[in-house]
Amino acid sequence: MSENIESESPLKRQLRTIIFGTDTPAGRYFDIALMVCIVLSVALVFLDTVEVFHREYGQIIRVLEWVFTIIFTLEYGLRLYCATHPVLYARSFYGIVDLLSVLPSYLALLIPGANFTLVIRILRLFRIFRVLKLLRYLSEGNVLLRAMMQSSRKVFIFFFSVSLIVMVLSAVMYVVEGPDNGFSSIPKSVYWTIVTITTVGYGDITPKTGLGQAIAAFTMLIGYSIIAIPTGILTAEISQEVGRHRDLRSCNQCHKTGHDLDAMYCSRCGCELDSLDVPVENDA
Amino acid sequence: MSENIESESPLKRQLRTIIFGTDTPAGRYFDIALMVCIVLSVALVFLDTVEVFHREYGQIIRVLEWVFTIIFTLEYGLRLYCATHPVLYARSFYGIVDLLSVLPSYLALLIPGANFTLVIRILRLFRIFRVLKLLRYLSEGNVLLRAMMQSSRKVFIFFFSVSLIVMVLSAVMYVVEGPDNGFSSIPKSVYWTIVTITTVGYGDITPKTGLGQAIAAFTMLIGYSIIAIPTGILTAEISQEVGRHRDLRSCNQCHKTGHDLDAMYCSRCGCELDSLDVPVENDA
Amino acid sequence: MSENIESESPLKRQLRTIIFGTDTPAGRYFDIALMVCIVLSVALVFLDTVEVFHREYGQIIRVLEWVFTIIFTLEYGLRLYCATHPVLYARSFYGIVDLLSVLPSYLALLIPGANFTLVIRILRLFRIFRVLKLLRYLSEGNVLLRAMMQSSRKVFIFFFSVSLIVMVLSAVMYVVEGPDNGFSSIPKSVYWTIVTITTVGYGDITPKTGLGQAIAAFTMLIGYSIIAIPTGILTAEISQEVGRHRDLRSCNQCHKTGHDLDAMYCSRCGCELDSLDVPVENDA
Amino acid sequence: MSENIESESPLKRQLRTIIFGTDTPAGRYFDIALMVCIVLSVALVFLDTVEVFHREYGQIIRVLEWVFTIIFTLEYGLRLYCATHPVLYARSFYGIVDLLSVLPSYLALLIPGANFTLVIRILRLFRIFRVLKLLRYLSEGNVLLRAMMQSSRKVFIFFFSVSLIVMVLSAVMYVVEGPDNGFSSIPKSVYWTIVTITTVGYGDITPKTGLGQAIAAFTMLIGYSIIAIPTGILTAEISQEVGRHRDLRSCNQCHKTGHDLDAMYCSRCGCELDSLDVPVENDA
Repeated sequence: MSENIESESPLKRQLRTIIFGTDTPAGRYFDIALMVCIVLSVALVFLDTVEVFHREYGQIIRVLEWVFTIIFTLEYGLRLYCATHPVLYARSFYGIVDLLSVLPSYLALLIPGANFTLVIRILRLFRIFRVLKLLRYLSEGNVLLRAMMQSSRKVFIFFFSVSLIVMVLSAVMYVVEGPDNGFSSIPKSVYWTIVTITTVGYGDITPKTGLGQAIAAFTMLIGYSIIAIPTGILTAEISQEVGRHRDLRSCNQCHKTGHDLDAMYCSRCGCELDSLDVPVENDA
Repeated sequence: MSENIESESPLKRQLRTIIFGTDTPAGRYFDIALMVCIVLSVALVFLDTVEVFHREYGQIIRVLEWVFTIIFTLEYGLRLYCATHPVLYARSFYGIVDLLSVLPSYLALLIPGANFTLVIRILRLFRIFRVLKLLRYLSEGNVLLRAMMQSSRKVFIFFFSVSLIVMVLSAVMYVVEGPDNGFSSIPKSVYWTIVTITTVGYGDITPKTGLGQAIAAFTMLIGYSIIAIPTGILTAEISQEVGRHRDLRSCNQCHKTGHDLDAMYCSRCGCELDSLDVPVENDA
Repeated sequence: MSENIESESPLKRQLRTIIFGTDTPAGRYFDIALMVCIVLSVALVFLDTVEVFHREYGQIIRVLEWVFTIIFTLEYGLRLYCATHPVLYARSFYGIVDLLSVLPSYLALLIPGANFTLVIRILRLFRIFRVLKLLRYLSEGNVLLRAMMQSSRKVFIFFFSVSLIVMVLSAVMYVVEGPDNGFSSIPKSVYWTIVTITTVGYGDITPKTGLGQAIAAFTMLIGYSIIAIPTGILTAEISQEVGRHRDLRSCNQCHKTGHDLDAMYCSRCGCELDSLDVPVENDA
Repeated sequence: MSENIESESPLKRQLRTIIFGTDTPAGRYFDIALMVCIVLSVALVFLDTVEVFHREYGQIIRVLEWVFTIIFTLEYGLRLYCATHPVLYARSFYGIVDLLSVLPSYLALLIPGANFTLVIRILRLFRIFRVLKLLRYLSEGNVLLRAMMQSSRKVFIFFFSVSLIVMVLSAVMYVVEGPDNGFSSIPKSVYWTIVTITTVGYGDITPKTGLGQAIAAFTMLIGYSIIAIPTGILTAEISQEVGRHRDLRSCNQCHKTGHDLDAMYCSRCGCELDSLDVPVENDA
């Protein structure tokens, strides 16, 4: 591999630094420009579905769509060209996302009525996550992600139990209210139960009988109470994650713990603290 | 009892290992097959209530219902046959659930219009909990359950106080808005208050007068604020449960606490940790 | 006062033990009977507002109302008679509540159309709190109450800030949507904003213009985010209250803290713990 | 600057103490009177939009508007006159707010139809924050603010991720339900998704197709689960902020920590505590 890198043209290497890297000013400008293109192209897709804009500016929007499609195609080509391992890149998660952000545009432009390509074109928003790497935000996201991982099993049990309750309540409401009051089938009744238990409450289907309203009230109270459970689980985990980040070091002199991550000296006795031996930023 | 076991046929013993046990591959396959049957049979009940499916596939659904009913009957018979104490099993919680998952199917198949059997047939979903024993998830559930037990008294007080507030608010709204604006009786007004205080808000009954809207706004703010209380109670308990699990051991060398449950060595100084003397998994 | 007590009749003293006390079996039976009467009399008021019940059983309900009114009048008379200081009792909080639970019944029975007495008659539910003293639940309620007191200033600031945001958003929506779309005045707009920010969402008033819907979406996101704030405040306080109850004692041998309130021995080393020197139950 | 202060008239100095200060009784009365004026003037703006009040008391309301406008103009003039640095004051945040609370009144009174001035006139509510300085509430607000600052990056990541999910779900629902069922464009679909994911649920747009209702149910469950995330983040931070305030001191004799901020002696051994060396109140 090292030979491979040595034999490649300097242009290729420089391109790679700009396109894949984020450390040089050029790399940062490229990322920002790309982000602007992504946001604008998605905004175009959104606006094109609004009747007024479609009628008035439909022509311009279509032209701009072609422009963005060409830009993203060029970018994909360049990435393929300057990647150290083009095949590995093309198969990687981001490589597929990059391809998917180009392909549907061609499909949509060639087959004007293909509405379903809308969704795939909007998926290109997820490319922003890569661009955001240049921000330092991700270590914060890691704390969240880790807390969610740690609590995922408890949350799974929670959702499993809730879905059992939902199904039983749906069957009960179907029997009590019946098709005449809008509960035309159990799947529709499940829809109603979820609308109710999550406290959304559209009101497109509502219980009409006294017994149905009593069960509905009971369902709401369940939803209202159990919302506390995932909150409790996640809060406990986030507290531990945040605490773990802070509690790593204790003062050698007074044994105070709970120092901030950027603290150099003990906030109580002023004694110098050990440097953090666990690199916090690298735990992605 | 030991004589009893020794005198029984090897077939019976083997069947018991498969049907009640989860340690052998055969036992695990049996559980998975049973789970699939339960889910499919409930899905059938759901689909049968949808107009289109009932018209098109009603015949097939009825046949499949018979098939599942026979499978569950066979299973119940086998459980009775190979249980060490058939009477104890038949009287146990799961024994009754197993029977209930078979009986209503016969009722429903013999009396086609008996809608109410729907609900009991769906209750068979709860049998999944037994099957899930083969997963390790339950220790996670125990932490949740214990936290809920510990906070149940605080939560009871909370719901008791809230229901008093609900009743008074309902009476006030009945007097203020009256039957002309949809608050036709206090029980109906209670339904509205619960819809409002849980922030569901169907909109099937809404206040029309200025004073009524002011009281409604007040009710919403109450509901919005007090949602914090059960969350706070439960979070505090879950934090303690999680913390208790972690704080059990301290490193003999550096006295670090808060080790993960599966940690063998201190994460700070590498000193070997004592094994957990309180068996966490057995506390079901 | 001691003379006063000595000179009073034994009947009076015994009555007081039964009516005000909760330690003797007779006192407990009295409290339970009273609770049943309160609940039944409130249920009567509720049922009487339902059209069907009023038509069918109106006569019986009115008779029962008289029965309960006489019972509560007798009880109030007995309380006045056997209280050590009748005047102090009559002026006390519970004395006034007891009187209020009797008076409106007479008013309502004499003036049949007086709807407003409904509310006061329902206020008698709060008498249940006194009866509940016989349960041990109140120490749990104290933890909640104390946590709420401790966080009341933070919660006040929160509600003050939110109400400023609500008012500005209401004015903006009134200007943007206007009377034609249901926002007929700023007070009505405030009602809409509270319906939206608390995520109730009746749907009786909804934004129709694009700009209005954008502001509405913004309002919802605010409501959705800030719901976290009172939860966070209260959870932090409840955690501290729960922690304070537990952290009072440390083991003399191994210095473990965080013992349960009813623990007699250290759960880690088995050393006997000091008895609680701060009486937890008496802090009402 | 000191010369400047010495050469100024005693009247000016006294006025400044009253208008800008809050330590003297006169200064406090001035602040309270100002607060009453602000609240009353905003209440006037609110009432004037109600049809009935506008018709009946329109004349009086307009006169009172003039009165308040003159009061606020006088106050602004006095502030400019007695400020130590009039230009600095006029440019400061509060100086601009003070000016903005006067200007739109003139505009609104001269151009009666100018509805948009409503909003600016209501912004004068924010002047109450200055007046509230005389209350001690702000240290409580600081804890909240600091917790929010600390968690702002996590919350930003959260909202960024949510908005990506919202956009993709909106596009999916637009394709699935289409303009015939009320999802007339993607921006409108975004409005629907936010109404649903925040569990507001107006019900002005609801899914009609089976697939649409399934996706809607999924959206609600997402909204219901992720509401736990900002709560968890904020609770963890508030707990730390509250804990940091309490954990500052430990008893010199028994090493108990977690003392209340106003504690003078250790609550366990009675030993005198060190005074707080970190001034908590001054961190505004």
